[in-house]
Amino acid sequence: MNLADLRFAAEPYYRPVGHEVALFEHAHAHRLPVMLKGPTGCGKTRFVEHMAWRLGKPLITVACNEDVTAADLVGRFLLDADGTRWHDGPLTVAVRQGAMIYLDEVVEARPDTTVVLHPLTDARRILPLDRKGETVTAHPDFHLVVSYNPGYQAAGKGLKPSTRQRFAALEFDYPDEAAETEIVAHEAGIDRTLAATLVRIAGRSRALRARGLDEGISTRMLIYAGVLIRDGMPAAESCRMAMTDPITDDADLRQALRDIVDACLP
Amino acid sequence: MNLADLRFAAEPYYRPVGHEVALFEHAHAHRLPVMLKGPTGCGKTRFVEHMAWRLGKPLITVACNEDVTAADLVGRFLLDADGTRWHDGPLTVAVRQGAMIYLDEVVEARPDTTVVLHPLTDARRILPLDRKGETVTAHPDFHLVVSYNPGYQAAGKGLKPSTRQRFAALEFDYPDEAAETEIVAHEAGIDRTLAATLVRIAGRSRALRARGLDEGISTRMLIYAGVLIRDGMPAAESCRMAMTDPITDDADLRQALRDIVDACLP
Amino acid sequence: MNLADLRFAAEPYYRPVGHEVALFEHAHAHRLPVMLKGPTGCGKTRFVEHMAWRLGKPLITVACNEDVTAADLVGRFLLDADGTRWHDGPLTVAVRQGAMIYLDEVVEARPDTTVVLHPLTDARRILPLDRKGETVTAHPDFHLVVSYNPGYQAAGKGLKPSTRQRFAALEFDYPDEAAETEIVAHEAGIDRTLAATLVRIAGRSRALRARGLDEGISTRMLIYAGVLIRDGMPAAESCRMAMTDPITDDADLRQALRDIVDACLP
Amino acid sequence: MNLADLRFAAEPYYRPVGHEVALFEHAHAHRLPVMLKGPTGCGKTRFVEHMAWRLGKPLITVACNEDVTAADLVGRFLLDADGTRWHDGPLTVAVRQGAMIYLDEVVEARPDTTVVLHPLTDARRILPLDRKGETVTAHPDFHLVVSYNPGYQAAGKGLKPSTRQRFAALEFDYPDEAAETEIVAHEAGIDRTLAATLVRIAGRSRALRARGLDEGISTRMLIYAGVLIRDGMPAAESCRMAMTDPITDDADLRQALRDIVDACLP
Amino acid sequence: MNLADLRFAAEPYYRPVGHEVALFEHAHAHRLPVMLKGPTGCGKTRFVEHMAWRLGKPLITVACNEDVTAADLVGRFLLDADGTRWHDGPLTVAVRQGAMIYLDEVVEARPDTTVVLHPLTDARRILPLDRKGETVTAHPDFHLVVSYNPGYQAAGKGLKPSTRQRFAALEFDYPDEAAETEIVAHEAGIDRTLAATLVRIAGRSRALRARGLDEGISTRMLIYAGVLIRDGMPAAESCRMAMTDPITDDADLRQALRDIVDACLP
Amino acid sequence: MNLADLRFAAEPYYRPVGHEVALFEHAHAHRLPVMLKGPTGCGKTRFVEHMAWRLGKPLITVACNEDVTAADLVGRFLLDADGTRWHDGPLTVAVRQGAMIYLDEVVEARPDTTVVLHPLTDARRILPLDRKGETVTAHPDFHLVVSYNPGYQAAGKGLKPSTRQRFAALEFDYPDEAAETEIVAHEAGIDRTLAATLVRIAGRSRALRARGLDEGISTRMLIYAGVLIRDGMPAAESCRMAMTDPITDDADLRQALRDIVDACLP
Repeated sequence: MNLADLRFAAEPYYRPVGHEVALFEHAHAHRLPVMLKGPTGCGKTRFVEHMAWRLGKPLITVACNEDVTAADLVGRFLLDADGTRWHDGPLTVAVRQGAMIYLDEVVEARPDTTVVLHPLTDARRILPLDRKGETVTAHPDFHLVVSYNPGYQAAGKGLKPSTRQRFAALEFDYPDEAAETEIVAHEAGIDRTLAATLVRIAGRSRALRARGLDEGISTRMLIYAGVLIRDGMPAAESCRMAMTDPITDDADLRQALRDIVDACLP
Repeated sequence: MNLADLRFAAEPYYRPVGHEVALFEHAHAHRLPVMLKGPTGCGKTRFVEHMAWRLGKPLITVACNEDVTAADLVGRFLLDADGTRWHDGPLTVAVRQGAMIYLDEVVEARPDTTVVLHPLTDARRILPLDRKGETVTAHPDFHLVVSYNPGYQAAGKGLKPSTRQRFAALEFDYPDEAAETEIVAHEAGIDRTLAATLVRIAGRSRALRARGLDEGISTRMLIYAGVLIRDGMPAAESCRMAMTDPITDDADLRQALRDIVDACLP
Repeated sequence: MNLADLRFAAEPYYRPVGHEVALFEHAHAHRLPVMLKGPTGCGKTRFVEHMAWRLGKPLITVACNEDVTAADLVGRFLLDADGTRWHDGPLTVAVRQGAMIYLDEVVEARPDTTVVLHPLTDARRILPLDRKGETVTAHPDFHLVVSYNPGYQAAGKGLKPSTRQRFAALEFDYPDEAAETEIVAHEAGIDRTLAATLVRIAGRSRALRARGLDEGISTRMLIYAGVLIRDGMPAAESCRMAMTDPITDDADLRQALRDIVDACLP
Repeated sequence: MNLADLRFAAEPYYRPVGHEVALFEHAHAHRLPVMLKGPTGCGKTRFVEHMAWRLGKPLITVACNEDVTAADLVGRFLLDADGTRWHDGPLTVAVRQGAMIYLDEVVEARPDTTVVLHPLTDARRILPLDRKGETVTAHPDFHLVVSYNPGYQAAGKGLKPSTRQRFAALEFDYPDEAAETEIVAHEAGIDRTLAATLVRIAGRSRALRARGLDEGISTRMLIYAGVLIRDGMPAAESCRMAMTDPITDDADLRQALRDIVDACLP
Repeated sequence: MNLADLRFAAEPYYRPVGHEVALFEHAHAHRLPVMLKGPTGCGKTRFVEHMAWRLGKPLITVACNEDVTAADLVGRFLLDADGTRWHDGPLTVAVRQGAMIYLDEVVEARPDTTVVLHPLTDARRILPLDRKGETVTAHPDFHLVVSYNPGYQAAGKGLKPSTRQRFAALEFDYPDEAAETEIVAHEAGIDRTLAATLVRIAGRSRALRARGLDEGISTRMLIYAGVLIRDGMPAAESCRMAMTDPITDDADLRQALRDIVDACLP
Repeated sequence: MNLADLRFAAEPYYRPVGHEVALFEHAHAHRLPVMLKGPTGCGKTRFVEHMAWRLGKPLITVACNEDVTAADLVGRFLLDADGTRWHDGPLTVAVRQGAMIYLDEVVEARPDTTVVLHPLTDARRILPLDRKGETVTAHPDFHLVVSYNPGYQAAGKGLKPSTRQRFAALEFDYPDEAAETEIVAHEAGIDRTLAATLVRIAGRSRALRARGLDEGISTRMLIYAGVLIRDGMPAAESCRMAMTDPITDDADLRQALRDIVDACLP
């Protein structure tokens, strides 16, 4: 992996909603590990990309899931014509060469990942590669960022207290209406009136969480719908295809979502 | 795998039931990942084949199940006389060379497939081959399509909200009577009167879902029965063999289905 | 595997109980996948062997169970002095060379077998060997037959609706008294009077299913008992050893079965 | 494995309790698979050894358990300096070379063993070595014998009806007092009076099964105790060490067993 | 493994509490497998070491647990420059060369260990190495000893009746006060008064088992505490550190244990 | 691994709260295995580092988790150009070369670790490398230290009594207010008044454990917050980011924690 390829040439668009940029910079200055908490699609990944660009650091992103193990992060021996050869995993690359690493939805990963994260997140800042018999001291630029969604997790999963307290936390939520309108208009290339309408639909959908909806319509989905409408697709069909129909299989909830769309569209 | 072999020489027969062709073309133009929802045998696979032909794109189809892992999609190292050699999986082939890939019944696959789908379904459009240490940027023609059946899923399975919102959704259902009659007559090579009778049986069978039938008789089964009747087999035995007896083991439901057949056949 | 070895030189004895021979021939003519449903030991395997002989096709039989995976059917790479070498599994042999394949008790197999059966059971008739990077188009003579026993299955097992509707179904049950008597007399080489007595015992035993017996005495067991009696063993001991004692461990049921034997024997 | 080593040079001592020798000979003459049912330590293994000696056949014994798989029975590829080499498992050795094979406590084995037993236990008498691509036709002398203990099984285990009906069954129980006395006196080398006392203790212990004892004291344990007493150990301590204390950890049951010992010893 | 290294040069200290030495010698003379039952830390391991020394036999000890499999005991093929090479496990070493083997906490091991123990514990005294295709006849000096703690076992674990009845049993408990005082004084190098005090604390702690304590304070822990006190550590802190605090995490039980310490210390 | 690299050049800061330094030195003098019990982040790891420095011993730390197996600790064979080569794990390195080893959160490790810890923690002080066929006698300087948190464990986990009683226990808790203030001021480089305020917040947070908080705010988190405040970040935001927001996802508990912060900050 060539770290130069992992630097952002252009600024990833991000519209701050509070002091999160400054707070992250403080944590980064001390290489305090950062935990981003918040619902799906509210901009956590984009925020990390923006901060990596802002701080001029290369960024490695790993989408975690229940099959990701410590070996997937750290590396493993591969069989070769000359026997086994060690292959650094993405975490080891970041630790050695000094990159930011972003473990998206970290609670989904196998618990053995904590064995490698703990010594990286206290005063030692080391990564033991037990199977290789090597201990890597972290490059001064190495910085660990993780995210998870506290509102939706696989049953029985969560971070252990001994892991939690190694992180500084930043809470995220969907941006407020004005900010979200600006984001949707910018990213989808549509006018503010239409963007505001889409944002209004999203806001109402999020209220359905009390009625059993796992997650409301996210900012990303509004952008998808905006792109389709700009492209000439009817607004109602665009909203159904990109906003309401993907997020639920429940007939009642889907009808409620479609009613919201019909009520909000001009 | 030679992509040329994956192009359709002849048009796969598909009879539209709404705007789905145009909606899919819009999503395809922006390479928006598409999720097809609908009951078994209502034509989702045929629709994807038809769209691949219409758009002139090669198509790779993977039938997912609970043993399909990310490695099955992405590829793995195989041992060779000269050591290990990387072997691209079907997803990597599609990403590198620019094909449509259709993951049928995607919710059945192991959750680690999300680790490879997520970075392909947002602005990055990349496929990290962690074990190979390579990140493949998707070919401009790469397009991801998935399907699942919301009415019948293994317990505890489903798409996570963070995955759902990366897709535009198209809902499918069995075609209406007129359309289904036309399809069955065309595909089985029988006259419209017989086709209409078979469609009427199917329609009544679907009402039995309220009494515990997992799925009603699908369009595909009507075509099977039609073929057998055209071939000279008695109509009642053909309907039993191809339509009623395969779909249930429950004695009461099977009798109810057979009664429907007897009542509808002339 | 040499397909010539898989052809039946002599006719496997089978006594039809209905139109099943003609129905199977129709399905075979269109290579419609066939599903045989029925209780254990009622003759499903013998029927498939008879049909393979009748149609002049080689037959490969696989007894499925919960450890049979897709790789067991499709094949795998074996390590060799020259590295890895692909080894076709029984399904691939049948698909390439044009044999009938019979998957006995298919519901017991691991669910990943559906990934290879689905594209073989619709219009495509292809077998993707993902790990080998090859897609095999089925030989025109390839024909898939499966069986299962709807009355006795491991908990939580069953065919998914999307799999069921790819098959034409033939239902089997124990033959009626006259037919079963003829079969037992023919296969065990005993006279019809004794055969009729054994059949009467079996008939009464099947009624015990309502009292908790998993399965009644099957035709195969009657033949076993007949062989032992012909060989000079006392009838009562033969019936116990080959008919009543193997099928239950419950003391009450076994006594009930033995009482039936004593009441029926002259 | 050299089959000559698996023949019994001397007669294994066995004292018949009924017609089991003749019944087994009849089943053996037709190579009917035999299932031995009965409690632990009542002599099933010794009976099979005796029959193998009597019939002049080599015998291979496999003690099954929940980690025994089909591959353990059939064989597997082992890696060698020249690549992989196939290694026949004990079942394949018996099938090829014509031995009796005895699968002790067969219900404990993994269910995939049924895949190899079924085609060996019907008219085909073949053993498919799927991974080797070979089908072995059984040697005329091959004979399959299995045993299990219906009174004590791991939860949820048992033989499927489709497996059961492929066997002729012989039921075993502890021998009656006279026979058991003779066996214990013969095997332990003690006089009949002492042997009778030990048998009386065993008989009473078996009545404790109604009070929660898994199994009573077996014939084998009586022989152990007899040997220790003959060797000069006090009778009470010998009975405790070899008969009562091994079979239960329950304080009440152990006391009840010890009381039986004290009451019976002179 | 060099058996000479496994002989005890010096007598391991053991203070008999009954006839266990003579009983073990009788069982050893006939190579009757021996099962030692008793609570943790009461001296079972030391007893076996003492007997091995007394009988002049080498001793191999294996601490079992739920990840110990038959292959761990028997051996396996290891990959080498020249292909695979068989490596004898500890049980095979003992069987071939004639050592005592002690399987500590045998019920914790995986059930497949019974497959190798059974033919070693009946008249056959053989060890089948199925994967190597070799059957090892036990050296005349081979003797099997196992232990387990009937008062504390992982749920659902235990010895099957068919395994139990292959062993002669010796029951162990903590020694009586006088004996335990002598042992503690001897092993810790402290005077009898202090040793008696520690023993009194242990005796009272064992009564707490009725209130939920898994196990009372063992003899080994008294020795630890004695060593620390002899070394100059305050008695109360030594008792807490070595006796009361390790055995429970329950605040009430720990306080009760500390109260016992305070009440007993002078 | 070079043991010289595992020695501490500078004294790791540790402020004693009782006699723990002397008690540990006594246990170390006799190489008595030590078990550190206490809540997350109260200083157990730092204490071990301090003692290793104080005693002039190299220290190897392993963060255990449910995927850590005995092989991870002991070592394994790795495939090489010349075949397999044994690779010592961290425990074997410590045993051979005479280091302290610290198994953090040992109860999380797989139970097979007990198989290697038991013979190291009694009079034998040996480490059997079963797969290598070698038994390593511990270097005189080898010392085993483990830790766990009795207040928070994965369900069903815990140390077996037979393991517990091999250790001397040291109980840890958060330091008292004066000590904690001193630690926070020293480590974060802030004045005592601010440190005292942070400590007061932590004290109140720990009382929330009764209301469902897994763990209160740890000393480590106070240091993080102190560092951020010293760096110029507003106190309230620093406390939220480093102290309250990481430890809970429950909205009520988080609000309660934030209220404590607001009430305590000047």
